[in-house]
Amino acid sequence: MRVITAGILGAGRIGKIHANNLMAMAGVRLKAIADPYTDFKEWPGPAITASRDPEDVLKDGEIEAVLICSPTPSHADFTDAAARAGKHIFCEKPIALDPERVRATLATVKRSGVKLQVGFNRRFDPTFARVRQAIVNGEIGDVQLVRITARDPAAPPIEYVMSSGGMFVDMTIHDFDMVRFLSGSEVEEVHAYGAVLVDPGIGKAGDIDTAVTSMRLSNGALAIIENSRQAVFGYDQRIEVFGSKGGIEAHNETPARTVLRTAAGIRSENPLYFFLERYQRSFVIELEAFFSSIRDDKEPPAGGKDGLMALVVGLAAKQSLVEGRPVRVEKLASPEAKKVR
Amino acid sequence: MRVITAGILGAGRIGKIHANNLMAMAGVRLKAIADPYTDFKEWPGPAITASRDPEDVLKDGEIEAVLICSPTPSHADFTDAAARAGKHIFCEKPIALDPERVRATLATVKRSGVKLQVGFNRRFDPTFARVRQAIVNGEIGDVQLVRITARDPAAPPIEYVMSSGGMFVDMTIHDFDMVRFLSGSEVEEVHAYGAVLVDPGIGKAGDIDTAVTSMRLSNGALAIIENSRQAVFGYDQRIEVFGSKGGIEAHNETPARTVLRTAAGIRSENPLYFFLERYQRSFVIELEAFFSSIRDDKEPPAGGKDGLMALVVGLAAKQSLVEGRPVRVEKLASPEAKKVR
Amino acid sequence: MRVITAGILGAGRIGKIHANNLMAMAGVRLKAIADPYTDFKEWPGPAITASRDPEDVLKDGEIEAVLICSPTPSHADFTDAAARAGKHIFCEKPIALDPERVRATLATVKRSGVKLQVGFNRRFDPTFARVRQAIVNGEIGDVQLVRITARDPAAPPIEYVMSSGGMFVDMTIHDFDMVRFLSGSEVEEVHAYGAVLVDPGIGKAGDIDTAVTSMRLSNGALAIIENSRQAVFGYDQRIEVFGSKGGIEAHNETPARTVLRTAAGIRSENPLYFFLERYQRSFVIELEAFFSSIRDDKEPPAGGKDGLMALVVGLAAKQSLVEGRPVRVEKLASPEAKKVR
Amino acid sequence: MRVITAGILGAGRIGKIHANNLMAMAGVRLKAIADPYTDFKEWPGPAITASRDPEDVLKDGEIEAVLICSPTPSHADFTDAAARAGKHIFCEKPIALDPERVRATLATVKRSGVKLQVGFNRRFDPTFARVRQAIVNGEIGDVQLVRITARDPAAPPIEYVMSSGGMFVDMTIHDFDMVRFLSGSEVEEVHAYGAVLVDPGIGKAGDIDTAVTSMRLSNGALAIIENSRQAVFGYDQRIEVFGSKGGIEAHNETPARTVLRTAAGIRSENPLYFFLERYQRSFVIELEAFFSSIRDDKEPPAGGKDGLMALVVGLAAKQSLVEGRPVRVEKLASPEAKKVR
Repeated sequence: MRVITAGILGAGRIGKIHANNLMAMAGVRLKAIADPYTDFKEWPGPAITASRDPEDVLKDGEIEAVLICSPTPSHADFTDAAARAGKHIFCEKPIALDPERVRATLATVKRSGVKLQVGFNRRFDPTFARVRQAIVNGEIGDVQLVRITARDPAAPPIEYVMSSGGMFVDMTIHDFDMVRFLSGSEVEEVHAYGAVLVDPGIGKAGDIDTAVTSMRLSNGALAIIENSRQAVFGYDQRIEVFGSKGGIEAHNETPARTVLRTAAGIRSENPLYFFLERYQRSFVIELEAFFSSIRDDKEPPAGGKDGLMALVVGLAAKQSLVEGRPVRVEKLASPEAKKVR
Repeated sequence: MRVITAGILGAGRIGKIHANNLMAMAGVRLKAIADPYTDFKEWPGPAITASRDPEDVLKDGEIEAVLICSPTPSHADFTDAAARAGKHIFCEKPIALDPERVRATLATVKRSGVKLQVGFNRRFDPTFARVRQAIVNGEIGDVQLVRITARDPAAPPIEYVMSSGGMFVDMTIHDFDMVRFLSGSEVEEVHAYGAVLVDPGIGKAGDIDTAVTSMRLSNGALAIIENSRQAVFGYDQRIEVFGSKGGIEAHNETPARTVLRTAAGIRSENPLYFFLERYQRSFVIELEAFFSSIRDDKEPPAGGKDGLMALVVGLAAKQSLVEGRPVRVEKLASPEAKKVR
Repeated sequence: MRVITAGILGAGRIGKIHANNLMAMAGVRLKAIADPYTDFKEWPGPAITASRDPEDVLKDGEIEAVLICSPTPSHADFTDAAARAGKHIFCEKPIALDPERVRATLATVKRSGVKLQVGFNRRFDPTFARVRQAIVNGEIGDVQLVRITARDPAAPPIEYVMSSGGMFVDMTIHDFDMVRFLSGSEVEEVHAYGAVLVDPGIGKAGDIDTAVTSMRLSNGALAIIENSRQAVFGYDQRIEVFGSKGGIEAHNETPARTVLRTAAGIRSENPLYFFLERYQRSFVIELEAFFSSIRDDKEPPAGGKDGLMALVVGLAAKQSLVEGRPVRVEKLASPEAKKVR
Repeated sequence: MRVITAGILGAGRIGKIHANNLMAMAGVRLKAIADPYTDFKEWPGPAITASRDPEDVLKDGEIEAVLICSPTPSHADFTDAAARAGKHIFCEKPIALDPERVRATLATVKRSGVKLQVGFNRRFDPTFARVRQAIVNGEIGDVQLVRITARDPAAPPIEYVMSSGGMFVDMTIHDFDMVRFLSGSEVEEVHAYGAVLVDPGIGKAGDIDTAVTSMRLSNGALAIIENSRQAVFGYDQRIEVFGSKGGIEAHNETPARTVLRTAAGIRSENPLYFFLERYQRSFVIELEAFFSSIRDDKEPPAGGKDGLMALVVGLAAKQSLVEGRPVRVEKLASPEAKKVR
């Protein structure tokens, strides 16, 4: 297996997770990591070049692939820079909050001929991947309904909400990607109901914390996403797909597989706390897939178009909520966008 | 316990079920049953007066309560007649397909001072009743989302579809009632997506066989109903309610509680085949509740307004589907209707 | 369907259950019930002859079948008397606590040519019947291990314990019957460990409240029974059978099929409280089978030999506990016994 | 965190797993690995000294801890040698098949003052650890029954069986350790039933492939182990502990958490294939615990006495099977042994 030399931009929470995963990954050498706000005293150790200057990664001729884990507003610029430097790119979602900006970056990437994978890690979760496999295998026949339940264990701080772009673009974007991924189809029209039922502060900040989004897909199937910013029993991440030959349901993952029976009831474990725990393995598997697509010169399994389309559907849902009517997605996703990949 | 004398109009499938249940029920004496299309040779035996003339039931001075189990188009007329005869009424749903007709009948019932219960049997299913109890107990806090999955094991004949009033009024009406019952709230607005994915003949007949209906409720909560005319694995009747302190999920009932482990997989039982099996106990319990409300002079647990409102929401869903936009229910449910009970 | 006229001896808890079930059962006419200690004021109503004298049942020429629901010490005498009166017999278990007495009664029954069914109701529980069916169907291949978990929700009063014949004969006897029924094989050898872990009073009364009984069966398979007089979470009645092609597990039945998710955990329902609730349907089905075996002149599905063998295995387990070694059952079950049925 | 330098003896299946885990483990530096039968061409890479001579590990003054992963017959000798070299020892189970040999080695370890952990990895499985935690927390009250189900997915080759020391010592030894670990108590007496139901060749080789072992523990509780060399549905590793306040059950782990509903049934995933998949995480956690006990100068969580006692119970079970009677363990476990740790 050919060893690929990689660098990382951004050493925050997700940057550190990716860095540690790369350090233990066969076929990859993490050479450098850069973050202007990190002092790198304790971590990542002497074997890796740590710096405050992104250029130390972008200009390193040995580095073939860059992981962009910096704050969202810098994603597009770093993607452009990495593409121009001829490096393959793994970029956390979203590339940008403005579809035009995303399209411009995708065009740059295309011109550079480098590979781009977007961080839709949930596609790589073993349980969700099994759902997709059942569909691909024909185990449930033609897909008729995709339903996704996605609830966070606790609402984020108001400051986070204010800069997040809104629930549909910040949180539901993962679910829109899963609808597309599982159905193998595009979202044609979306209708959203939203409410503020968890934290009035979120409402004051102009956002919602509870939503039901229904969709009509291009293959004729329907889809539903249920979202909440707070499920007091923990991170609620379930999927159910129904089709002409049956259905498949993905349950929550738990830290242990026990059932406790007492006079107070029959109890199984609450879900794994949040996305770091729940999707721990997906973060490893998505990077293995990224490096494998470089090594074998294949299309990455979650590309630029996927990043763009999930964003556009999110914006359509937002518009539906504001206008109180269903919104057709094609009006937001220009024909040009469909050609880009 | 005071024994109440009862009669039944209609000896079709559901009429027979109710009759057999009454024969085994303490505190009730089934005296007479009438059906113009039944010869009553084998059944119900000599102890019960069987006749082809409804008047034999309606004019019997001993009979205090009448169960109306005849075909839908006769429900309203028989309800009117029974009310005028001063008999308490249990009427299978719907009272009529036209809300104005329902309102007229409810007014007649009110004037007569008799009790009217509508056959929303699912409220009495032990599993769904436990869901309601959890909500009433505050176990899940304030309701934020009600989701109902309701799928038949096989599509009905096209002739049935053509005279059914359409999926929302024929099938989803039970689910609309459950949304109201579980949430303790009215449906304010409804948006429906529908599709023909099971049987093209249903589409040709002007109906749909697959639907996703989302709702905004008067207490601020949201609701979703998923319907299909065909789940190949069996009658799929599940409910999940999510709230500020947790959630409660009702699973399908099965004929046995086994898990079979073989090389081919870990298998539990398919659901009970259809509504007769799945809701067997609910049919008994709803009648016990009806007779108990007569005996104790209480409001029946599913009354005329419940019958009207579920119908009106169903008509709103139909309109939403046709017009491709959300529909406010209050425009269909007149203020007068809200006062009637 | 030919109607069979039946009488009942004994109007205690189980007698009343059987009487009520017969009153609602097609093809059976309950004519008379006798119990010296019941005044029959409120129950069973005017349609049924109620008396304090068993002879009123035994001498009634119309009565074709008798259900013996009196206290255990009278079972054998009443069975003898009913047999001599030429009536088919359903007798609650055990026929007697002394195998010789059981053998004598079985011989009387045989000479009289009447049918005898013993009240091993668990065979008719839909979930356990499904387990047996899976075995018969070959779904799990050759049986290699039968495991039964049987725990009561609360320990019985000490007086009950003292007259019960001991845990193995009083409680485990049902499980020994299930081992035989499920495996289709006889118990060859039994080894028991017992302990007093629930109530020291039970120990003082010379009995145990906790046991692990292992067995070698005549077809080479093994079996285990786990017993406790107290499971604080409720009546714990589970079975698992493992074989060459897989295994099948029977879970506890619950009053509803819900899962409640809160911060305190993910909870499903505790089991149905005790045998009256858990085995409600089995009491109906076993009697339907009894009357059907009379009507069709078939062997009853749980006969005299089954009653004898479960008792003999129970006595062997008791002896194993006392002597601290495995005990071969054939030494207790005489060859003659094997011929009787 | 102080970095501990470690070496490994044995580069077979389990040696490689431990080596790879150490390479990714913080606070540990794997310096050397030795195996006379491995050529180390592809693995473990240039950073680690690989050799055919165990002395290269045992004589390396930098190496503080040695993992003994060589074939069983060499465990005791290597443990002795490592102890004499002053190195802390992690030794795969069993230390030896002869308890006297184990005792001699434990004495050597004690004299050397080094730490010894035995490879009872299942203690560290997150699900089983949760079971233990529930017991320690008092969630199920006093333990009354421990039941372990342990079945392999397929029978091993006959050659393996012949050199394994027999099923109780080779396979059940893990379960005996779990009984001790979970109950916090010693096994006083054991009774075993065994059978050859999977592969007649195993019987010809003088071993069994199916067993039911029941035990009386020193705290008064009882225990059962169910074993089979072949569960066609996969590696069956379940535990249930019952106590005065309830019970806790550990289910099998699966590769995904899905439920597939089709006309053929409701299917969940078969268990993870075998111990490498099922106990993957336990192998990491047991080594983290080992190195942590060195770093913090604590007793390792599974020590020499644990290794000895599980072996002695296994030998008692073997003797019970041969002699057809229960065997007291204390006769095999000398008082001296109890003092050693």
